[in-house]
Amino acid sequence: MRRFFVEKADKPILKLTGDERKHLAEVLRARQGDRIVVCPNDGNDYIYEIVSFDKTSVTLEFIEQYVNPTEPDLFLCVYIALLKGDKTELEVQKLTELGVRKIVPFVCDRTVKNTEKTERLLRTAHEASKQCGRAVIPEISEVKNFQEVISELSKYDSSVFAYEGAYNAGLRLGDVIHGDEKSIALVIGPEGGFSDEEVTAALSAGIKSVTLGKRILRAETAAIAGAAVIMQLCGEWK
Amino acid sequence: MRRFFVEKADKPILKLTGDERKHLAEVLRARQGDRIVVCPNDGNDYIYEIVSFDKTSVTLEFIEQYVNPTEPDLFLCVYIALLKGDKTELEVQKLTELGVRKIVPFVCDRTVKNTEKTERLLRTAHEASKQCGRAVIPEISEVKNFQEVISELSKYDSSVFAYEGAYNAGLRLGDVIHGDEKSIALVIGPEGGFSDEEVTAALSAGIKSVTLGKRILRAETAAIAGAAVIMQLCGEWK
Repeated sequence: MRRFFVEKADKPILKLTGDERKHLAEVLRARQGDRIVVCPNDGNDYIYEIVSFDKTSVTLEFIEQYVNPTEPDLFLCVYIALLKGDKTELEVQKLTELGVRKIVPFVCDRTVKNTEKTERLLRTAHEASKQCGRAVIPEISEVKNFQEVISELSKYDSSVFAYEGAYNAGLRLGDVIHGDEKSIALVIGPEGGFSDEEVTAALSAGIKSVTLGKRILRAETAAIAGAAVIMQLCGEWK
Repeated sequence: MRRFFVEKADKPILKLTGDERKHLAEVLRARQGDRIVVCPNDGNDYIYEIVSFDKTSVTLEFIEQYVNPTEPDLFLCVYIALLKGDKTELEVQKLTELGVRKIVPFVCDRTVKNTEKTERLLRTAHEASKQCGRAVIPEISEVKNFQEVISELSKYDSSVFAYEGAYNAGLRLGDVIHGDEKSIALVIGPEGGFSDEEVTAALSAGIKSVTLGKRILRAETAAIAGAAVIMQLCGEWK
């Protein structure tokens, strides 16, 4: 069944208007009697049946609701340095599929791109949530700077940053993630890596540096692979 | 240092011609005395110093050689159903970074695209190998059909395929990968998933079906995330 994110799942009758009406009626060519899933972004799936169409709205009747089973117990937040081109969007799409709950784009010493339309990232997260069956769209934060990122990491059970220089130290994700965390922050730097000052600041703030292997991963690969491994370590892939 | 893949690392003098000469001399504007890494795709890094340039070649002098440390012990082969657009290339790029040794594109009942220029995929693997510091370019197979894929899986220590329907069975990668395998095959289906006949054929051939979580991953996300998790399970991210 198709998923639609809405402001509020009114009962027993819900009217869809605007883009959602257009998509349902004109793109998907849905018919009276078809059922859809409506998500007010509260973690539940609300099943509705189409009752009627008119030029400005689709009228739906509430059938039943249940807790959507796809949300991980783990609250994983990924901090991603802004990347060139459409790579930040690629990250948002993949991280949404992998069950990440919040994404924080940030700028730092070596980011080339220093602004991002977070609206565009939110649209990507919205589309990916529909496609992968989630009932919660990941929160997309406004763009932060690295100092702001560091200052908020203490609120997570564990926070790690991927750092090439960590290869010698030898810590990997499996060494620092225990699997019983309720919340984890993963911080991924820009194409050129973090500056020495940023690494020092992060380590001083108690953030653990981990290696993502012996090869030099592109930033977006590090974000996607890192999130996948954390999900596996926390038992979310079952 | 920049990496160059060549046919043969001649000693003590190596001459680079053609595209490699052009890239080194005209794009990178390398100078006499600069050092580069030359890889004849044998797992070793050969260090050379630039001696001189002329219009058709760059002359290099051999300095030293050592085993490149980035190759995983695990031989991971990923079988990827052909995807639309440039998604197959995205998979090849990311799988190369993650240390995959061989990639086999294949067609099956629900693949929309049924041909692929494997030369293009090889070029992507070549570029990604240079960028991530590998001394071995993953082998890119010619396009196979699903029956051919199944018939060759018995040569791996373990072979798994990602299957949405496996969610109920509940097996996940951590349940079927023990971590001491020398070779693993991961099979990823097309956008529309495997057909019932294909699933039956795969299970009959002893291939284990695994779930990649509760959400519906796009095919390319499944390939990248699956390979990352297998590498983690086999200790390659240390």
